[in-house]
Amino acid sequence: MNIESYIREKAVSSRAAADALALMSTEEKNAQLLAMADALERAYDEIVAANAEDVEKARDAHLAPSLVDRLTLTKERFDAMVEGVRHVATLPDPVGAELSKCIRPSGIAIRKVRVPIGVIAVVFESRPNVFVDTAALCLKSGDAVILRGGKEAFKTNSALAKCVRASLSVPDAVEFIDITEHEAVSALVRCTGLVDLAIPRGGERLVRAMCEAALVPVLKHYKGVCHVYVDDKADFGMALSILDNAKTQRPGVCNAAECLLVNESIAPMFMPMVKAWADDKGVILHGPAKAGDGSVDWEHEFLALEMNVGTVANCAEAVSHINRYGSHHSDCIVTSDSAAASHFLKSVDSAAVYHNVSTRFTDGSEFGMGAEIGISTDKLHARGPMGLEELTTYKYEVTGDGVIRR
Amino acid sequence: MNIESYIREKAVSSRAAADALALMSTEEKNAQLLAMADALERAYDEIVAANAEDVEKARDAHLAPSLVDRLTLTKERFDAMVEGVRHVATLPDPVGAELSKCIRPSGIAIRKVRVPIGVIAVVFESRPNVFVDTAALCLKSGDAVILRGGKEAFKTNSALAKCVRASLSVPDAVEFIDITEHEAVSALVRCTGLVDLAIPRGGERLVRAMCEAALVPVLKHYKGVCHVYVDDKADFGMALSILDNAKTQRPGVCNAAECLLVNESIAPMFMPMVKAWADDKGVILHGPAKAGDGSVDWEHEFLALEMNVGTVANCAEAVSHINRYGSHHSDCIVTSDSAAASHFLKSVDSAAVYHNVSTRFTDGSEFGMGAEIGISTDKLHARGPMGLEELTTYKYEVTGDGVIRR
Repeated sequence: MNIESYIREKAVSSRAAADALALMSTEEKNAQLLAMADALERAYDEIVAANAEDVEKARDAHLAPSLVDRLTLTKERFDAMVEGVRHVATLPDPVGAELSKCIRPSGIAIRKVRVPIGVIAVVFESRPNVFVDTAALCLKSGDAVILRGGKEAFKTNSALAKCVRASLSVPDAVEFIDITEHEAVSALVRCTGLVDLAIPRGGERLVRAMCEAALVPVLKHYKGVCHVYVDDKADFGMALSILDNAKTQRPGVCNAAECLLVNESIAPMFMPMVKAWADDKGVILHGPAKAGDGSVDWEHEFLALEMNVGTVANCAEAVSHINRYGSHHSDCIVTSDSAAASHFLKSVDSAAVYHNVSTRFTDGSEFGMGAEIGISTDKLHARGPMGLEELTTYKYEVTGDGVIRR
Repeated sequence: MNIESYIREKAVSSRAAADALALMSTEEKNAQLLAMADALERAYDEIVAANAEDVEKARDAHLAPSLVDRLTLTKERFDAMVEGVRHVATLPDPVGAELSKCIRPSGIAIRKVRVPIGVIAVVFESRPNVFVDTAALCLKSGDAVILRGGKEAFKTNSALAKCVRASLSVPDAVEFIDITEHEAVSALVRCTGLVDLAIPRGGERLVRAMCEAALVPVLKHYKGVCHVYVDDKADFGMALSILDNAKTQRPGVCNAAECLLVNESIAPMFMPMVKAWADDKGVILHGPAKAGDGSVDWEHEFLALEMNVGTVANCAEAVSHINRYGSHHSDCIVTSDSAAASHFLKSVDSAAVYHNVSTRFTDGSEFGMGAEIGISTDKLHARGPMGLEELTTYKYEVTGDGVIRR
């Protein structure tokens, strides 16, 4: 069978599973989640053995140690993954919520109600916990999911898929693409009429390739080029503390800061403090240069203890720079000037805009969503962290007593 | 200059205009709308003269009379178009609404606020009023719009663009693509980072071509294959009245019914009434055949006094048929059985599901949105009629007093 028809067949099974899931009660879905968690615990030996094979192969192939580490399923990570599934069972069910209702002059009654999206395709890279996290979130939101993992985690994901599917009353609610060909991904994102949404969870290359091939909607972020702008009326201690947190607390993630912008009127005083902090923390600074200066790659995402530094004449220049070179992810102003703060919050066109708060807070659990399936820098449907509500859509239910349009 | 860089330049101007629009107050936007309406009235002679040229050219080229009619800007249509702009000024401004807020245990305060989407590209066919309706709605929602009309209305649209742009304090808020090459459309929907959303308003061919080329999100409906399902417990008089309204009140629109499904237990009694109705109204019936029968093209959109007729064993079979062959637009059950109605409303995966109401109500003004920019059969962001709120997105504004993540 060719790859395209193989993938379409999986999508057809998912579609049927989605119809069944949409009708499941909250209690049924929670019971399924707990069964999934129990099944994973029982299959611990088998899953860890499969993971050991992947890890050995990765070491033999001399993959980067950071990649091998991400791939490794330790006991602690396994337990956290299982607990994550049980946690999803405790979260409120978004499906069925009445978003609005009205009776129109025509006599029709309209209810706008939250419903599952349907079939969601998730393509991810090496972290095996993504398989289980995603399956759990989609099950709770009533969506069927088609998972496609990285080939370096193939045996781990296969073992997880086998265990998770066997634990479900509708096994096809969690489909696993068990072929490693690249064409499988493009076939998946071209299944119009079957796949309702695709979510890539991985590096910029994966995301761009998926978007280029896609005919179905894709929710994603390409990268996180987040800014900390220190205004002329900033408290320097607060500015350094936020900068330190945004850059160094976890430099490899998308909400870490990649560019510091400093108001030029305070630069002579503030920059020496920044340099002292950078020396102390081992952060490599590029600059300072005038913001927008052509010799700097302002769109670069370092994901390391390294960042660009730019100077701006005022808050408006900082906003223009961020809107032009940023990734519309998370950007912060440090200032005690409420007019500047309000201008920044209103004008910066990003999913999350911060005043005197570290950019590191853009995260489903920090935002109170309980769990997240990813972060979107798109503007449609979901912006910022995506939790259970963002995995749903709505429909209009219209009732009447034989009402016709005049 | 090549087409791609020409279009990119337009999109760059729109982007700048969008930044200005996002900061405009409701009063400023309403004043702009009223100025636009006045300017259109003053330019009546010029616009109608341009339209006469288009109409003459269309007649000379022997375009279909229905197309020539759609293209013609009568005094009545012109006045309605101008009144439409004034009406948009009276609608509530969706921008700035606080969708939710909370203070998290970390100490950060989060506000989720409604903001414009940014730059919207709208590609439409012959009706000239679409130019003005769309410009008015986007201005009110704070979005910059790039309009591309059909080449048969080129002179009319050029005259409208000249007039509308001259009336605005930010003329680039309404950009007009004044070249007729097909490549302009594909270039437009590939402007990632500049165009935030594309909306096709036209036939299925236009929509498919745009989706195939697009790298930016597209909101659309391909077609409207709407169903009326008459259950075994239906009031026949009500069923015929809804069928008549859904099929004949305006057969050329997307929310008109294209398929009648009848419960087979009532078919012997009900079908003769349907046939009598069809004879009386000049409706061509195809069938009845068993729903799903391979000899019928169940996905066909007639847009005329013509429809498919299928029989089903029960409500569940009607639901399966609709989910498989329908267009996820608007579908109706006629029944006095509340269990069947509730199953249908919950299981049919369409933007609008109706119980004892004609499908013709799927419409922005019937739904209370005041005006609409189109109807979406997509599931993400906006489903069903799209009004001003659907032309916005949200951002998170997060404030604190130097809060960092632990």
